[in-house]
Amino acid sequence: MVSNRLTTLAFDADDTLWHNEVYFLLTQKRVEALLAPYCDKTSFNKRLLETERRNIGIYGYGVKGFTLSVIEVAIELSEGKVPATAISEIISGGRDLLAHPLELLPGVEAVLRGLKGYRFVLITKGDLLHQEEKLAASGLGELFDSVHVVSEKNEGTYRRILRDAEHTMMIGNSMRSDIVPALAAGAYATHIPFEIEWELERADDPKGEPRFARIENMAALPQLLAQFS
Amino acid sequence: MVSNRLTTLAFDADDTLWHNEVYFLLTQKRVEALLAPYCDKTSFNKRLLETERRNIGIYGYGVKGFTLSVIEVAIELSEGKVPATAISEIISGGRDLLAHPLELLPGVEAVLRGLKGYRFVLITKGDLLHQEEKLAASGLGELFDSVHVVSEKNEGTYRRILRDAEHTMMIGNSMRSDIVPALAAGAYATHIPFEIEWELERADDPKGEPRFARIENMAALPQLLAQFS
Repeated sequence: MVSNRLTTLAFDADDTLWHNEVYFLLTQKRVEALLAPYCDKTSFNKRLLETERRNIGIYGYGVKGFTLSVIEVAIELSEGKVPATAISEIISGGRDLLAHPLELLPGVEAVLRGLKGYRFVLITKGDLLHQEEKLAASGLGELFDSVHVVSEKNEGTYRRILRDAEHTMMIGNSMRSDIVPALAAGAYATHIPFEIEWELERADDPKGEPRFARIENMAALPQLLAQFS
Repeated sequence: MVSNRLTTLAFDADDTLWHNEVYFLLTQKRVEALLAPYCDKTSFNKRLLETERRNIGIYGYGVKGFTLSVIEVAIELSEGKVPATAISEIISGGRDLLAHPLELLPGVEAVLRGLKGYRFVLITKGDLLHQEEKLAASGLGELFDSVHVVSEKNEGTYRRILRDAEHTMMIGNSMRSDIVPALAAGAYATHIPFEIEWELERADDPKGEPRFARIENMAALPQLLAQFS
């Protein structure tokens, strides 16, 4: 990293501040079991990923679109034999996903509360209401100067939101949504990998990019930021 | 209305600038026909309204939540007998709703393009991606200084968004979402009733409120605004 004063820290939310993907995976496993009489889990998971990829342009991100995609796949792979009771269970699973308790990732609260003198911005995609509710449940809402629930995180999104990109660092777990487009928009970007990564969030590391960094967890952020002061 | 200089016009989108409810009703009629072997349409419509009301706190507004509520009702009212093919058709109907062509209401484009010297704000609820796509398809996007897709339109929403409420007029078709809370937040509010009103958007007229007005259609807006200059 080169030295440059940072004024703004922009954070991703899901799997950067709090758990998210683990709940989707648990739901997916519930559905695998439910559909076991109709299809094997490998076909189910493969078809679900294809279906989600196709549907994202219509549904956008989040639990509701995921639930609709799961139902679509269940009907297709069972050739219409999946019973209505199983579809009810899928809907319940989606509702549970929207209502799961919020669990902050280790170190997040202490680190965020300890960092002084920065403008904090939250940039997240997903269902609007759900993301707002998670932020409220996190107890961290008052730390953020602005909160943006967006339909897609691309270079244009960051250019629109970040008023002062060259003095901003974006921090997140997704190479595709948090790192690559934030760098393209002129910001610093720090990757905190999460143990589970959704296939649709993968991207290669940027090459020869001095504004890119990777740290192991949120607890390592203050030390990284110390290089900028 | 009392005379006071207006600086900002805030518009609702669905059924104020463009058609929306008519597409939901068409989809609802398709589903009524589909479910005719399992339940009468009165029971279906009654149960759907109850289910949407209950689910809005979890799903928020918009097509995806509507689709999930319709599937839930279809399964419940048919006591699990609705076939998977019918559920596939409901999902298709939801997707059609997300992709229907955008149709502006009469007079909207001419009136909005003709009004000069105001800050334009758009405040709408629904699926984030869908609302953004409708605005893009409307060709009116460039007229708005700011666009807010929100999860709920209550007094707090307007207080947060409207920086200068006492010089702002909110214009919309929903008494409950556009008029009552905008007045409570200190803005002027002008109701343009739409021929179809979703039950969940009803509210009584405000009593003795000089900042409230009602006009027949968007074409009557310039004349109303002339009273403020």
